[in-house]
Amino acid sequence: MLLAQAPDGVPMISGGDDLAAVLAPVLGALSWPDGSTGLADGDVVVVASKVVAKAERRLVPARDDAERDAAIAAQTVRVVAERDRPDGGVLRIVETPQGLVMAAAGVDTSDVPPGTALLLPEDPDASARRLRRGLHARLGARPGVLVTDTAGRPWRRGVADLAIGAAGVVLLLDMRGEKDAYGRALQSSIIATADEIAAAAELVKGKVAGRPVAVVRGMGHLVTTEDGEGARSLVRPPEEDLFRHAVTDD
Amino acid sequence: MLLAQAPDGVPMISGGDDLAAVLAPVLGALSWPDGSTGLADGDVVVVASKVVAKAERRLVPARDDAERDAAIAAQTVRVVAERDRPDGGVLRIVETPQGLVMAAAGVDTSDVPPGTALLLPEDPDASARRLRRGLHARLGARPGVLVTDTAGRPWRRGVADLAIGAAGVVLLLDMRGEKDAYGRALQSSIIATADEIAAAAELVKGKVAGRPVAVVRGMGHLVTTEDGEGARSLVRPPEEDLFRHAVTDD
Repeated sequence: MLLAQAPDGVPMISGGDDLAAVLAPVLGALSWPDGSTGLADGDVVVVASKVVAKAERRLVPARDDAERDAAIAAQTVRVVAERDRPDGGVLRIVETPQGLVMAAAGVDTSDVPPGTALLLPEDPDASARRLRRGLHARLGARPGVLVTDTAGRPWRRGVADLAIGAAGVVLLLDMRGEKDAYGRALQSSIIATADEIAAAAELVKGKVAGRPVAVVRGMGHLVTTEDGEGARSLVRPPEEDLFRHAVTDD
Repeated sequence: MLLAQAPDGVPMISGGDDLAAVLAPVLGALSWPDGSTGLADGDVVVVASKVVAKAERRLVPARDDAERDAAIAAQTVRVVAERDRPDGGVLRIVETPQGLVMAAAGVDTSDVPPGTALLLPEDPDASARRLRRGLHARLGARPGVLVTDTAGRPWRRGVADLAIGAAGVVLLLDMRGEKDAYGRALQSSIIATADEIAAAAELVKGKVAGRPVAVVRGMGHLVTTEDGEGARSLVRPPEEDLFRHAVTDD
């Protein structure tokens, strides 16, 4: 059974906060249906990149459109697609220094002080490893940690959460050695487990509820002792990328 | 709290099976941490398109590559991207009659009898509505129902599950009316809830475990009395689609 919950009572995060120190009391007080409390080995702690970035002082000035556009440009490695918007601006889907493909380079102007914008964490895998170490030191348990962000998808409406940083979580579950009921190798057999955990966590975290962190229990087979290679490895290499350039017919 | 589980003991599905009749005893016997059993209003039943398609007799002959390619071609509305594969074949990402963008038009040769291939359900939303009615008639509860399939994603490695059919589930949660802590409208604010439920369900269903159906509990705010407009509505309209054509530089 998979269980996921997002505690209330996470304090507002400010620049310079030690995220593990802030989250440990809240996570340590979680209650589970079996009567247990707190974090256990094999849990996955899923934290929104927004609070990671705030703690890491990734706020930049964005007093007007020009400053916001400059912040986005500075986080743009490559433009993947762009199109004029009805409001006169340009919608730009770009690759960020983290290898992510996102609208506006993941630069966030929701839920930040007026006149500012929030960049993605510079190295979300390092952020995940640091939070994992800090939670282990404070709570004893050794959870996996995912740092997540929200992205649109080609061809489908709506946005969904993805793992952009990871420590101690199996990111891709390779089933290619497995056989089907007829003894043949499985198709479609490398499962994006970290992104699926991120999606499950989003369902309980939500966007405005002041619940930026969730814990997913029951996926201990996807939690490893080693931190592993990080979510950066989820980025498809250019030579496998069929959608490196897009053409729009507008 | 979100809970998700995938029962063992689902019988092998054959052409012509009444899926609700086959699944009702298995779902009715589920045990939950609070001591309750079976299905409740507000649960979401998530079923792999594979068993829906098998019940709906969507197996076609595929005795060789030519027959398989013909099956794929017949399910192709539009080629979105293609590239030569090292084995001499062609990897083709296409749009299906259901509006889905998938490799090989979603035609499945895993876990089907040798010499056959399995097409997607012709109308997965109708399949979901039928299963919902059938489970309600047999078990009394009125769950939401999702039919899911597995797809690759541009730019990221690995595959994840998506909702391709739906009845009684909020597919997109529109948060645009909500305000952040500073009183401004949220960005990235239409959440693909049905796809996130599909992803959570995949984590407990898995691919080879013989568990093609999962139940997700705790998301009752996303379950509606009306069946709603169906997962077909998740397909991004062409005029919003920045990735309608892809160019590959190989």
